[in-house]
Amino acid sequence: MLSNQLHNGLETAKLLWSRIPNSEDGEVDGGSLLRNSNRNTVESLDYEVIENYAYREEQAQRGKLYVGYYVAVKWFLALLTGIGTGLAAVFINISVENFAGWKFALTFSIIQRSYFAGFVIYVLINLILVFSSVYIVTHFAPAAAGSGIPEIKGYLNGLDIHGILLFRTLIGKIFGSIGSVGGGLALGKEGPLVHTGACIASLLGQGGSSKYHLSLRWLQVFKSDRDRRDLVTCGCAAGVAAAFRAPVGGVLFALEEVTSWWRSQLMWRVFFTSAIVAVVVRTAMGWCKSGKCGHFGSGGFIIWDTGQEDYSFEELLPMAVIGVIGGLLGALFNQLTFHITYWRRNYLHKKGIRVKIIEACLISVITSAISFGLPLLRKCNPCPESDHDSGIECPRPPGMYGNYVNFYCGKDKEYNDLATIFFNTQDDAIRNLFSAKTIHEFSAQSLLTFLVMFYTLAVVTFGTAVPAGQFVPGIMIGSTYGRLVGMFVVNFYKKLNVEEGTYALLGAASFLGGSMRMTVSLCVIMVEITNNLKLLPLIMLVLLISKAVGDAFNEGFYEQQATIERNCTVGI
Amino acid sequence: MLSNQLHNGLETAKLLWSRIPNSEDGEVDGGSLLRNSNRNTVESLDYEVIENYAYREEQAQRGKLYVGYYVAVKWFLALLTGIGTGLAAVFINISVENFAGWKFALTFSIIQRSYFAGFVIYVLINLILVFSSVYIVTHFAPAAAGSGIPEIKGYLNGLDIHGILLFRTLIGKIFGSIGSVGGGLALGKEGPLVHTGACIASLLGQGGSSKYHLSLRWLQVFKSDRDRRDLVTCGCAAGVAAAFRAPVGGVLFALEEVTSWWRSQLMWRVFFTSAIVAVVVRTAMGWCKSGKCGHFGSGGFIIWDTGQEDYSFEELLPMAVIGVIGGLLGALFNQLTFHITYWRRNYLHKKGIRVKIIEACLISVITSAISFGLPLLRKCNPCPESDHDSGIECPRPPGMYGNYVNFYCGKDKEYNDLATIFFNTQDDAIRNLFSAKTIHEFSAQSLLTFLVMFYTLAVVTFGTAVPAGQFVPGIMIGSTYGRLVGMFVVNFYKKLNVEEGTYALLGAASFLGGSMRMTVSLCVIMVEITNNLKLLPLIMLVLLISKAVGDAFNEGFYEQQATIERNCTVGI
Repeated sequence: MLSNQLHNGLETAKLLWSRIPNSEDGEVDGGSLLRNSNRNTVESLDYEVIENYAYREEQAQRGKLYVGYYVAVKWFLALLTGIGTGLAAVFINISVENFAGWKFALTFSIIQRSYFAGFVIYVLINLILVFSSVYIVTHFAPAAAGSGIPEIKGYLNGLDIHGILLFRTLIGKIFGSIGSVGGGLALGKEGPLVHTGACIASLLGQGGSSKYHLSLRWLQVFKSDRDRRDLVTCGCAAGVAAAFRAPVGGVLFALEEVTSWWRSQLMWRVFFTSAIVAVVVRTAMGWCKSGKCGHFGSGGFIIWDTGQEDYSFEELLPMAVIGVIGGLLGALFNQLTFHITYWRRNYLHKKGIRVKIIEACLISVITSAISFGLPLLRKCNPCPESDHDSGIECPRPPGMYGNYVNFYCGKDKEYNDLATIFFNTQDDAIRNLFSAKTIHEFSAQSLLTFLVMFYTLAVVTFGTAVPAGQFVPGIMIGSTYGRLVGMFVVNFYKKLNVEEGTYALLGAASFLGGSMRMTVSLCVIMVEITNNLKLLPLIMLVLLISKAVGDAFNEGFYEQQATIERNCTVGI
Repeated sequence: MLSNQLHNGLETAKLLWSRIPNSEDGEVDGGSLLRNSNRNTVESLDYEVIENYAYREEQAQRGKLYVGYYVAVKWFLALLTGIGTGLAAVFINISVENFAGWKFALTFSIIQRSYFAGFVIYVLINLILVFSSVYIVTHFAPAAAGSGIPEIKGYLNGLDIHGILLFRTLIGKIFGSIGSVGGGLALGKEGPLVHTGACIASLLGQGGSSKYHLSLRWLQVFKSDRDRRDLVTCGCAAGVAAAFRAPVGGVLFALEEVTSWWRSQLMWRVFFTSAIVAVVVRTAMGWCKSGKCGHFGSGGFIIWDTGQEDYSFEELLPMAVIGVIGGLLGALFNQLTFHITYWRRNYLHKKGIRVKIIEACLISVITSAISFGLPLLRKCNPCPESDHDSGIECPRPPGMYGNYVNFYCGKDKEYNDLATIFFNTQDDAIRNLFSAKTIHEFSAQSLLTFLVMFYTLAVVTFGTAVPAGQFVPGIMIGSTYGRLVGMFVVNFYKKLNVEEGTYALLGAASFLGGSMRMTVSLCVIMVEITNNLKLLPLIMLVLLISKAVGDAFNEGFYEQQATIERNCTVGI
């Protein structure tokens, strides 16, 4: 009588790390938390409560007051996890937006006089940010490198890798993310935020960090791995909720992608944590609207409003095509990152910390050169006739975010379409790609150039020793080819009320589906970030196709990365 | 090594029906479908695949072609389930809207001459519809009575009650729903739609109904209970997706409320079925917009757009109050229906079919008298100054749906606020309660009257021998007191941009949360039907409070109903 759920959980766990002693014969004792954690870098956790006489007697002896206190602490910690993750997300977003905003403003003001000086300043600022990130990670918090989601997935399935939930990892993740994302690398801050949420939850579950003398005795009531795991699940959901402002998506992500040990009582607490995050983030954004957060205004937290309200049956075919492209490109992405990460693990990163730092800095310089240089090679486009209803100005006023970036274009009524997506913060680039009422803003040539270059950069960047999420790069890549298909549809079906931005959104969904192979949670996240429920059936369709196509080639992104962990020595 | 998931599943199953032979010692064999089903009205199902030598050998012997065919049939059946459930939902909606629309149009035209004649006609039409419903259920499909959700919950947790998934139950459920909802009783069509979806799925899983010679040999490839159960889970999600036009809500409902045997592969198929339903329903509604469906226009499928985009911290207190009210009234509702259903089961309904029919007809007459009579006692209100932007006419033109019903009011610029909610189809009543930009449309007196009367009617009606869902009554009750609180807030915080409709929505969420005790799925359903993601944190807050308050008193609605089934003889 072994349930499927349990069976799947064990299968996943085995797949993730098969080098664990005693994981197969189900070694069982009541206090694995107290075990010596130096025995191995990986230890298996005991999530099953052993219902024997001793346990029941102990349970019966607990006073009613103690049980009440225990439950209250559980909920209080969930509350703190929500608040902490929300605040961490706000801090990361404000920092990234301010660094990036200041960087672009400075560069723009310098290139009015000298392109070369502007280029040097731009490269240097990016380099400093990326160097700070890689330095923190390599010298202080090695477990903070990468996305963190595969490791958290392993933890929730019963395998504790040494170091992934420490206080130093949390700090490294937060400040490393600010450096790597602010430094303009082709990676996102969403995966690291999930790890951040999990770290916060784990630390709270232990009652603080004992190493740094930050622990509180009265919070140390969690005696079993299971209680800690429940809280980490809450933290994981809180991370997604904070990253995408998608509370329901967070709950589903924790459910679908991460944990295979799930109880409906837990759902209830996870849900509460996500709701708290939503309130914290919303409050902070309301506070920032009054201009107290510097460059952080509309930017930062992902919310893109896409325009199209309706669609016709003729459009289903190009949408299916987007799904197929997403499946193919996603599977290729998984395969390429798999090989590169494998090579890095077994060869490059074994040469020491200095190589890791040089590698990250080199990629930073290349990324800066491409994002500055390629728009220079494109000629400027004349602005479209202004449409006062849409409220979009062309070119956009200096120092503002938005469409129609006037990069080096001399005349007033010109803009550079490649700079609009390449020489911009990620969130603004995506907003521009998703934007409605801007038909033919981008030329096919620019989009293709961006697609090829950014895809390559994203493949090469993932695996360097900086915190790196795959959501935002996936959305960037997907929305680029999605918009290409949209442009084709606009030209082909002339009479329809088609928005290119809708196709960009579907492209983003298809690439994430083809790469990460999530369905329900991804769908909800896409709907929550675009704030348009009417597109739900279309997103579902595209995700189904892209996942099916991707599954024909290889496994999902996180599973593939976990395979590498299994084959290499575990721990960093 | 018994997983929690499994444990919870068994607990639920035991709670649901404890009178099953051999359920505790885990009786195991491979072909319970082939067992004699007349042995008992309840039989336990074997959802565990026994992985022994014989099974593995059998699996290994299956050709690659057969496995492919098997998988293809699984997906094809999921597709058919989606299409079937979508079409059934469309059929029920069109029928109900046409019956109800015709009924109200006729009554309105008659009361221009004589109130008494109009009253008689109104009562008679309702009586005929309810009689047809109760006649079908009692004489043809006894298992079609009630909501069906507790029974489906039992089935998915391993207990097959005889008759709940037969072809005659399906027919009884569809036509019974049309009669009972069209006849104006205080019940909804959503619960029965879930049962309908499950019936369609189960019949497809058997390859059709053999009794009615509708079976197809080439579809009969499902040899295990588990395959059938998977398909029924899809059908269940399809039912919710169709009832509320909430595909994601459907998936979550199946996950949270119904099944405790869940695999992530299944989620994928459930998701596909829900997406199909969304496409079918959307297509049908597009077709109906051109006026081919009679009275069925904007009505029928639940989609209410609520207006408020923003909220302030001062509003959180009244919203929390709504949560508390929801928890209290929901728990009271559960307790009252529990006692009344218990009494009906053990006393009234044992007296035979005739008593059941008389009971339903009596309740129909009382409901008609109250919904016609009470608005007559209210005086007419003058129309507010017309606001051309909102597009709301007062009084509404004859034969149309909408706000400001001119019931018996003589003058042109008057309307009857109680008739607007009482003397209307349920969907329109809810739309009116949720409507924005209609501040002070309802008087507190009318709302209180409606709340008390409808609450009483809903308690009394549930348990009669007609198909009866609890979602719509719950939404009606909740939105009434929600709007009352909203009116208070509008008067109290004068400067805020408060919409009474938003409070009505939160009230609906709170009552459903306090009664059914679902969280995540209910939250997603509420967001999907109101099409307003910005209210998500508020809905979460209200649901958390109402569930917590309700849990302090008793168990959820479906659990309580299942307890009755356990205590009475099972089967009808």
